Amino acid sequence: MKKNILYAQSGGVTPVINATACGVIETARANYDRIGKVYAGKDGILGILRENLIDTSKERKVNIAALRHTPGGAFGSCRYKLRSIDESKREYERLIEVFKAHDIGYFFYNGGGDSADTAYKVSQISNRMGFPVQCIGVPKTIDNDLPVTDNSPGFGSVAKYVAVSIMEASRDVESMASSSTRVFILEVMGRHAGWIAAAGGLAAREEGDPPHIILFPEVIFRQREFLKKVKHAVENYGYCSVVVSEGVRNSRGQFLAETGTRDAFGHAQLGGVAPVVAEIVRSKFGYKYHWAVADYLQRSARHVASKTDVDQGIRGWCCGCKIRSRRQKRCHAGDQAGFQQPLPMEDWRSFAGPRGEPGEKNAKKLYLGRWLWNYSRCKALPGAPDPG
Amino acid sequence: MKKNILYAQSGGVTPVINATACGVIETARANYDRIGKVYAGKDGILGILRENLIDTSKERKVNIAALRHTPGGAFGSCRYKLRSIDESKREYERLIEVFKAHDIGYFFYNGGGDSADTAYKVSQISNRMGFPVQCIGVPKTIDNDLPVTDNSPGFGSVAKYVAVSIMEASRDVESMASSSTRVFILEVMGRHAGWIAAAGGLAAREEGDPPHIILFPEVIFRQREFLKKVKHAVENYGYCSVVVSEGVRNSRGQFLAETGTRDAFGHAQLGGVAPVVAEIVRSKFGYKYHWAVADYLQRSARHVASKTDVDQGIRGWCCGCKIRSRRQKRCHAGDQAGFQQPLPMEDWRSFAGPRGEPGEKNAKKLYLGRWLWNYSRCKALPGAPDPG
Repeated sequence: MKKNILYAQSGGVTPVINATACGVIETARANYDRIGKVYAGKDGILGILRENLIDTSKERKVNIAALRHTPGGAFGSCRYKLRSIDESKREYERLIEVFKAHDIGYFFYNGGGDSADTAYKVSQISNRMGFPVQCIGVPKTIDNDLPVTDNSPGFGSVAKYVAVSIMEASRDVESMASSSTRVFILEVMGRHAGWIAAAGGLAAREEGDPPHIILFPEVIFRQREFLKKVKHAVENYGYCSVVVSEGVRNSRGQFLAETGTRDAFGHAQLGGVAPVVAEIVRSKFGYKYHWAVADYLQRSARHVASKTDVDQGIRGWCCGCKIRSRRQKRCHAGDQAGFQQPLPMEDWRSFAGPRGEPGEKNAKKLYLGRWLWNYSRCKALPGAPDPG
Repeated sequence: MKKNILYAQSGGVTPVINATACGVIETARANYDRIGKVYAGKDGILGILRENLIDTSKERKVNIAALRHTPGGAFGSCRYKLRSIDESKREYERLIEVFKAHDIGYFFYNGGGDSADTAYKVSQISNRMGFPVQCIGVPKTIDNDLPVTDNSPGFGSVAKYVAVSIMEASRDVESMASSSTRVFILEVMGRHAGWIAAAGGLAAREEGDPPHIILFPEVIFRQREFLKKVKHAVENYGYCSVVVSEGVRNSRGQFLAETGTRDAFGHAQLGGVAPVVAEIVRSKFGYKYHWAVADYLQRSARHVASKTDVDQGIRGWCCGCKIRSRRQKRCHAGDQAGFQQPLPMEDWRSFAGPRGEPGEKNAKKLYLGRWLWNYSRCKALPGAPDPG
């Protein structure tokens, strides 16, 4: 008998996370002889725990295709980490209950390293509970810091955004530097990994091209050295363009963003690092400066997404068809449709759990019924039921 | 005899200011029987005062066409305001000297209201000095606050950038609001005019769509009222998306950006208004927030420029051919070429003043020779020589 898929997004969104959702759903539809419905957890794993699921089989083909072009996370995501099986036992069990209630055979968890780990743990406990589910961690992160992968869907588009933005803004600064702003600082994401900041370097082709300085979270910020480089750029190229990661730290290990500004009451304010760096430059040289903090703009900028990234978001993971190329045509029949319309919001939000009642009520019913399930822990390895 | 054109950019650049440069140069080339060379002032009017001119007739057609697609100001711009004719008499005279040395019959000054005023004054003094020059103020500003115009080249693209950015970022926030960020604040330009902030409203289609709040420089910031609206949005839509103009002021007339943050020494820090607004929200409700400051990214974002804006940048002003449509084909022969390559920087920077010597040296020679010129002030009206 055909089993259903449960798909959920996790953590911060990327410009292409909806492209991945599109890939999962379209591939499942193309394989209708072996796969049932695709449910999506509303707001990620919280939606599964609350049994707040979206039945994507009720969505029109054109709307599923439009996910490729839609920023944000269409089904909602969340920051919610399941801990070890012992610590979060009831939650894991709750997941399996919901899986069982909706006849789920495959769980696609679309997130970063923690989500992959959760998917692994879910597969373990599903086996122990006698309801084996095939769990697939689908990579997604803008930071590009996932183990084992060489890059991750989401990163390529943010890299493009940062490179394009610093190139454009640097030309702006260059135009005016003789009588106006001489230093421009762009703050980008990547609190612990410098890949996004490094992507700013794609804007440069040769010595002297902007950005002249990139500040990484992995490299301790040395003020004197930094100022020397700023001066060199201004004196040699007329201006200085800087990309700084939000996660840059000083030699005491403090985030630079937390060292500089105080609110009106003198409390340290968690602000951007760009204004702090700008102030360091101003107080030393008095150069006129400007700064920008891209924040969510960079990770939601679907309008300038990388084509390679979108393609990887859709194709890179699903069914192994990247490798099994003969099956590709079948799996991705809908890929080339190229619908330009964004998905109407009301269609995203329709709840249609097979139990007939939506959301919280349903969840409570199942929650109370937890005792029905088998808590057996006899099976230790991830389950992998035959998809046939 | 054919006269030459002198073109100069002034003030902050826009995503389409180079498109205007392209329009001037291509139109002049198409009218080669009546117009000579087009010179461009390097770094705006400063380049004219210093006789640092770029001879665009040496530039390849493909490079001139590429100006349509290039952010920043290709020939450089500046912040430099000529005062009244009495106060800045020597500078005005200096301009006329340079005009005369390069046989300039037409001066295109591409900037805002001040630049249009300067162009008017230059035309007055050129008449008085017996060397009448037709002076054309070519509109350009992202703020959309030029008198007499209903909109201005530059604004449309920034409006598009802001609308696209707040739409994308709001979808991001919405995806995560149930367990993460609930308030997002995007700071945009327009210190004294709220057109850019208002453009954020283009992202909304119906009640409840983001942005939920727009803060204008023309409207005094009332904290209590603002917080009430934030709460309403979070409670009704799950999150609150805000666009704030950098120029928002409180009831005492202070810029909000200057009221909130202090540096490590307790000095008021000229920072963004977005973190100040974010702090107001956090201290009242404790909502998790994010903020972005688009700064130069918005005014250099050629990659997402408005087509209408680009077209206006090229066509809106030149030769009146917008009105005289039969001449349009001739004027804009090069318009449809659509070259995608950016202009190599070395070509932009070539100096080729007809006096043989570049830059400062040349400028000094002419500067010393100022006494050669006629200081007559007998003609009060702008000159308009026949372009035949």
